Amino acid sequence: MAAIQNIEGVELSSSSSNSRYGKRDDSVVIKLQSKANISCKFTSNAFQAAPVIIAKKHILNGGNKEKIFLINAGNANAGNGKSGELDALKCCKEVSEFAGLNTEDILPFSTGVIGEPLSTEEHIAAFKKAYSSLKPTNWRKAAKAVLTTDTKIKLVSKTLVKGKKSINITGFAKGSGMIRPDFATLLSFVFTDADINQSLLDRLHNEALSESFERITVDGDTSPNDSSVLVATGKSGIKVRSKAKEIKNFKKELVQLFQSLAQDIIRDAEGAKKEIEIRVEKARNNTVARDVAFTIAHSPLVKTAMYGNDANWGRILAAVGRADGISDISKVSIKLNGTPLVTRGSRDPRHSESKASKSVKSKKVVIKVILNEGKDSFSVLTSDLTEDYVLINSDYRS
Amino acid sequence: MAAIQNIEGVELSSSSSNSRYGKRDDSVVIKLQSKANISCKFTSNAFQAAPVIIAKKHILNGGNKEKIFLINAGNANAGNGKSGELDALKCCKEVSEFAGLNTEDILPFSTGVIGEPLSTEEHIAAFKKAYSSLKPTNWRKAAKAVLTTDTKIKLVSKTLVKGKKSINITGFAKGSGMIRPDFATLLSFVFTDADINQSLLDRLHNEALSESFERITVDGDTSPNDSSVLVATGKSGIKVRSKAKEIKNFKKELVQLFQSLAQDIIRDAEGAKKEIEIRVEKARNNTVARDVAFTIAHSPLVKTAMYGNDANWGRILAAVGRADGISDISKVSIKLNGTPLVTRGSRDPRHSESKASKSVKSKKVVIKVILNEGKDSFSVLTSDLTEDYVLINSDYRS
Repeated sequence: MAAIQNIEGVELSSSSSNSRYGKRDDSVVIKLQSKANISCKFTSNAFQAAPVIIAKKHILNGGNKEKIFLINAGNANAGNGKSGELDALKCCKEVSEFAGLNTEDILPFSTGVIGEPLSTEEHIAAFKKAYSSLKPTNWRKAAKAVLTTDTKIKLVSKTLVKGKKSINITGFAKGSGMIRPDFATLLSFVFTDADINQSLLDRLHNEALSESFERITVDGDTSPNDSSVLVATGKSGIKVRSKAKEIKNFKKELVQLFQSLAQDIIRDAEGAKKEIEIRVEKARNNTVARDVAFTIAHSPLVKTAMYGNDANWGRILAAVGRADGISDISKVSIKLNGTPLVTRGSRDPRHSESKASKSVKSKKVVIKVILNEGKDSFSVLTSDLTEDYVLINSDYRS
Repeated sequence: MAAIQNIEGVELSSSSSNSRYGKRDDSVVIKLQSKANISCKFTSNAFQAAPVIIAKKHILNGGNKEKIFLINAGNANAGNGKSGELDALKCCKEVSEFAGLNTEDILPFSTGVIGEPLSTEEHIAAFKKAYSSLKPTNWRKAAKAVLTTDTKIKLVSKTLVKGKKSINITGFAKGSGMIRPDFATLLSFVFTDADINQSLLDRLHNEALSESFERITVDGDTSPNDSSVLVATGKSGIKVRSKAKEIKNFKKELVQLFQSLAQDIIRDAEGAKKEIEIRVEKARNNTVARDVAFTIAHSPLVKTAMYGNDANWGRILAAVGRADGISDISKVSIKLNGTPLVTRGSRDPRHSESKASKSVKSKKVVIKVILNEGKDSFSVLTSDLTEDYVLINSDYRS
């Protein structure tokens, strides 16, 4: 893994509220110097957590001063009605006063259990403590403190050299269940020191999301807390503009960073033993390609077969056949890690069960579905469905 | 359970092909006397098994003579291309010659593993043997022989007394995974001795399906073999006509019988420990009600929480919030076995975790979701998601 680059204009730290997770750090503060541009995308779920409701208001009403993100893990502060919103607001208000800012300059984020009151005072104390220890280097500390059922930190850095100068991009994310692509599906914070105007930043953010977090799924469930944040501090002094030729390289690095975080989430999916990539090719349009890919990715029978090292192409073909826009499977071919399983609607004539079994045994499985109806393609990353997934999620109130 | 009524005009039996399941009976023959009306509904999956393709042709081209259904368990004869169709045809042809009928008078049905060649000769021998032992009383024997991963037979009878005469309805079904509501989702065979014309029989069949098999789901997966058959032999001499007043009573009994089979399937769902009924009420239209119900029923997080006896209303509310047509959850209330969990979008003010925990512990869980937006409602039956489901389905080629 490449070294983690600090981002000029960004400081961060974490502390413990000593509530749900005991002494483990669970409260993160990120401080941005003034004039940073911030792009936020929130959950598409109609059920929105209190911090999402508050952050959406504050992003519209804040000034161009310094900004602070407050993130707590262990409690989603969702489903708590008006008192949940008051709790989120209180965190913003107290930290803003402590930092000499306005309440609207603070954006709150939460992740964890739904429907329990936030330990507000405890988190406020932890946020203040974290604020007092802000440093530009605390990436690992922050990336660790936001985790819930995750087992690993997800932290990635990229550098784009421009003559004697360079642009850095660093981001971290959390999420291992309730992951699906109605866009953000997790908490993700990505920062760059490039100078990018607001509208371009929003566009780049959308594009990066559509190539990454919108193409992963664990269980098809969407959280009320999903938030993705992309910040451009501008401190490198290097402008990225939509017409300049460097946009292409910058976008490439940004998309790769988002994809890397998305892949880390799938690899750390609840109970997952395998990473499964579903590539749908030669679809008659993008909608069909996407629908087939997600229908396979959400099929419990395909996901359990992969867990059991069973190259059960019948279940894959059955998922293709029930996807929207598929009325004929006689042109469909399926390969698993390169081994042909289905050719034009039925078992490949060269099919060998032992060869198929061997190819499904690896940790990474690529299921390629060729529809032979057109030119469009779509890929999704998902995980297998294991007894551990059931254990983790049936364990009382994870 | 009420006694099983024979249906005049129907004889059945089973035998063993001594193939996949060893000496267990796996080959069923059902013989109908001439002039029976037959209504067939097949899978909506674009991936259709060979017997489905053949049965569809034969139902159109058969005469008004005696009819025979051939059912084999253990092999779906799906994904085998043209040779699969030839195998299914061969079964029809050989049995038709043995019975002195035309090939088109035979309808084949298969259930079991996808993508393996049918043990055609072995099944033909077993069908002939079963044909030679046909009896009007062999209901249990046939209902048992069609099972695959099912652990219990699903066999139900109803009687409708009409003065000194009576109408009987008897049916059996199989199915415990790959169950979902794109209508049929299983093999089901229901017979009545009422005299019902073809168009009314089709209509009654559709109505019964929409109230039963279209409202259950185990894993959201649809099989290429799903078939539902409703037969009216007419042998009771009692006419059921659309304008007569007895249609109401007959339809009620028929729907109840289908619902009883559907419920048996959910109770015997792969690995299931609980039966979960999701009732969505006060929706602004039926589409929204249906969509909310199925989104909850397919949520792995809701299904694992139920398994873990966790009244995790946050996951239920999150599923409601991501359903199509839901843009606001502030009116949504949720009750679990009568205990209020959510009132108007957030945790019920009287919420008691111990009370909620107690109510979720029963074998039957009713999740009532009141949208407070209109008058429409929809109910779905489903099962919990357990480690056993994963074990059964990750076990090599179930």
